[in-house]
Amino acid sequence: METVSENKCFDGVQGVYSHRSEATGTEMTFGLYRPPAEGPVPVLWYLSGLTCTHENAMVKAGAQAHAARHGIAVVFPDTSPRGADVADDEAYDLGQGAGFYVDATEAPWAPHFRMESYVLADLTQLLFDQFPLDPERQAITGHSMGGHGAITFAAKSPGRFRSVSAFSPICNPTESDWGRKQFTAYLGSLEAGQAHDASCLVGEGKLDAPLLIDTGTADEFGDLLKTGALVAALEGREMPATVRMQEGYDHSYFFVSTFMGDHVDFHAGHLKA
Amino acid sequence: METVSENKCFDGVQGVYSHRSEATGTEMTFGLYRPPAEGPVPVLWYLSGLTCTHENAMVKAGAQAHAARHGIAVVFPDTSPRGADVADDEAYDLGQGAGFYVDATEAPWAPHFRMESYVLADLTQLLFDQFPLDPERQAITGHSMGGHGAITFAAKSPGRFRSVSAFSPICNPTESDWGRKQFTAYLGSLEAGQAHDASCLVGEGKLDAPLLIDTGTADEFGDLLKTGALVAALEGREMPATVRMQEGYDHSYFFVSTFMGDHVDFHAGHLKA
Repeated sequence: METVSENKCFDGVQGVYSHRSEATGTEMTFGLYRPPAEGPVPVLWYLSGLTCTHENAMVKAGAQAHAARHGIAVVFPDTSPRGADVADDEAYDLGQGAGFYVDATEAPWAPHFRMESYVLADLTQLLFDQFPLDPERQAITGHSMGGHGAITFAAKSPGRFRSVSAFSPICNPTESDWGRKQFTAYLGSLEAGQAHDASCLVGEGKLDAPLLIDTGTADEFGDLLKTGALVAALEGREMPATVRMQEGYDHSYFFVSTFMGDHVDFHAGHLKA
Repeated sequence: METVSENKCFDGVQGVYSHRSEATGTEMTFGLYRPPAEGPVPVLWYLSGLTCTHENAMVKAGAQAHAARHGIAVVFPDTSPRGADVADDEAYDLGQGAGFYVDATEAPWAPHFRMESYVLADLTQLLFDQFPLDPERQAITGHSMGGHGAITFAAKSPGRFRSVSAFSPICNPTESDWGRKQFTAYLGSLEAGQAHDASCLVGEGKLDAPLLIDTGTADEFGDLLKTGALVAALEGREMPATVRMQEGYDHSYFFVSTFMGDHVDFHAGHLKA
């Protein structure tokens, strides 16, 4: 692991690190905010959306102020493998910057596009090996494609994340233009995609963590998110969930930053309980 | 004036607008955050540093959360005129992105590089004409080159700004490589630059507003800032000033965002008194 940069921030350290990933077969870069607190500290994972790198949320979402307040670390993974030797597509929503948090099985994506294994195994092991973080106290959040990632990773990792939240998540990708194309390309079929669809997983009772979602009523991609499908799937679940439709907010980081404090407070309540 | 974008943020509106400026003879773009409060509201000016546009602080500094809390608007001007027909230099610290908040008198800069007139007259008039802002309640802050701009604009506009603050400001540009080259290029001589040097102006008793400065002890450009010269000039001044050397912080927006809350609180105390 190499240190790309470290900046003091809210009395803690915002770092950027790179490492060779076995999962993706590439060099990967991630951000990690460590709060001014004695370790091992709890960890909040933040998964970013389409076109983002590790950097966007790290500089725009304002998470550090709240994480410092609660003594929680925040990790910002990249959204895909990258490089000249890595497959890509001209569209912004397929290929590099658009990993969709799955392990691809189809050509040309299968060799490197393994973001599920990268985040849940590879980066996880590195983080807990290298930093004073508490693996018993993890939570997860994300934005848009990253909200899809957060909910589905929590559903597929029973007991691992104490709480899950999302900002304007893609909730039902097998029924959306943000999902159908990508699952077909990466996984070969929409049927294969259902194992990575938040509404399908929740409908099967597979999410065992409390959930908070914020989505703007003026979200310019609102029809792609399918929030209603997830809410329908939540009915009858024996866990608390709060879905807030925030009046007048759009899909931007101005929206994310507005409610970041609420989300970190929500996770802190579970991580420090 | 044209609206480039408007995003709801902390229950207010983060807007970006463009307009034709008579001062610069170019199209100029600025950001304006309006808080969720009935107008006319107080205004905090934020002047950015070298290489920045109107956008950097608007997305990275986290000012909106604090401005919303206090009911204060924040305006984010650009740092220079821009365009294919506007003079430029290959160096990052001269020409476009590096206006230094002066009105150039020398070729090839004089036709467009008139950032003092742009901010203090042209943009000022537009803002108070177009938005419900209170011209009797203005304050000013900035980062690096923008800190130089904030202090010197306040010194040159007696009575206009109720309070002034800065993050890692360039304090004595006529004695720094961040200043000597630029003043010589834009104004023709270092002597002409003294009328735009914070330490010179404060030494002449020209700053009539309370002052707050934060600068990091790990600032990678610390030797260019000449903070000591300004502190020496502050001695004997009959106004309060606080200069904080913040341990371990550098020149980045991770530093600015950390102390933004303190600065907005400081200005709010004067704007709402």
